[in-house]
Amino acid sequence: MDLKSKIREIEDFPIEGVSFKDITTLTKDRDAFQESINLIVDDLKDKDIDYIVGPEARGFLFGAAVAYGLGVGFIPIRKPGKLPAPTASFEYKLEYGKNTLEIHKDAISKGDRVAIVDDLLATAGTVAAAALLIESLGGQVVALEFIIELEELGGRDRLKDYHVNTLVKY
Amino acid sequence: MDLKSKIREIEDFPIEGVSFKDITTLTKDRDAFQESINLIVDDLKDKDIDYIVGPEARGFLFGAAVAYGLGVGFIPIRKPGKLPAPTASFEYKLEYGKNTLEIHKDAISKGDRVAIVDDLLATAGTVAAAALLIESLGGQVVALEFIIELEELGGRDRLKDYHVNTLVKY
Repeated sequence: MDLKSKIREIEDFPIEGVSFKDITTLTKDRDAFQESINLIVDDLKDKDIDYIVGPEARGFLFGAAVAYGLGVGFIPIRKPGKLPAPTASFEYKLEYGKNTLEIHKDAISKGDRVAIVDDLLATAGTVAAAALLIESLGGQVVALEFIIELEELGGRDRLKDYHVNTLVKY
Repeated sequence: MDLKSKIREIEDFPIEGVSFKDITTLTKDRDAFQESINLIVDDLKDKDIDYIVGPEARGFLFGAAVAYGLGVGFIPIRKPGKLPAPTASFEYKLEYGKNTLEIHKDAISKGDRVAIVDDLLATAGTVAAAALLIESLGGQVVALEFIIELEELGGRDRLKDYHVNTLVKY
């Protein structure tokens, strides 16, 4: 299936000059959604994964479906103040400003084999921070899985230490 | 399986006097997560559902896994400003203040059979607003599915026109 044809491009969102990749048209399409999740599950099934980690909010959507399909647990990474138990946090720089991610400290144990799933690989800022957060708790980041890759932003170059799989490239 | 035993209770979060139901311990447990999603899929499988709708952010997590398990599409409901294409919105009152939900206008067509999936049935404010939003676009809300129900808050009484299924009751 041509998954790219199921993704809607919306010009000048959220700001002028950006061509936003809208995955809601892909998730609404039952066959495209099934195939997207199945392709990620297939890529992970021989990697002895313990947990899928997904960043809020679109990483919840794809990550939880992958966890269910793979038969493993799902662990959320959230914006500050959302997780109720003690957290580890990681602050990282964006092009303008900064962002902080949190994970429950007791969510990851030493040696846990983890795959991170998110919708979009752009500059890789979020996923690189998420990987460091998992590793700081003793987890092993075995794979990074994305629906979309924006190749010209060079995110993959920042992730050379990891197995990276993306389904649709722009 | 005793799903309730997989949910962690955290006192005084997010404010004093509240016993927060933490579903991250359930989603991390592979068997509890599988069973939760399977129970919802089983309840929906004879209802001829076209789409699962899930509200941001925990509704993405459970809703997308249910959509994948049921073999249907997933449609997100989001906070204002997050969806890139033209939206329909609905403002509703909270105990203190108000909230607004948005859905893509073209996500729902007349006659679409929809189930809403979310983590928690409390006062039912969010799900009632989500149902009205779907109905305003011509969709038919066939079922409302939740992991947790806080019975003393009486949310179910506000949802008498709907099929309501909850997995764990407090």
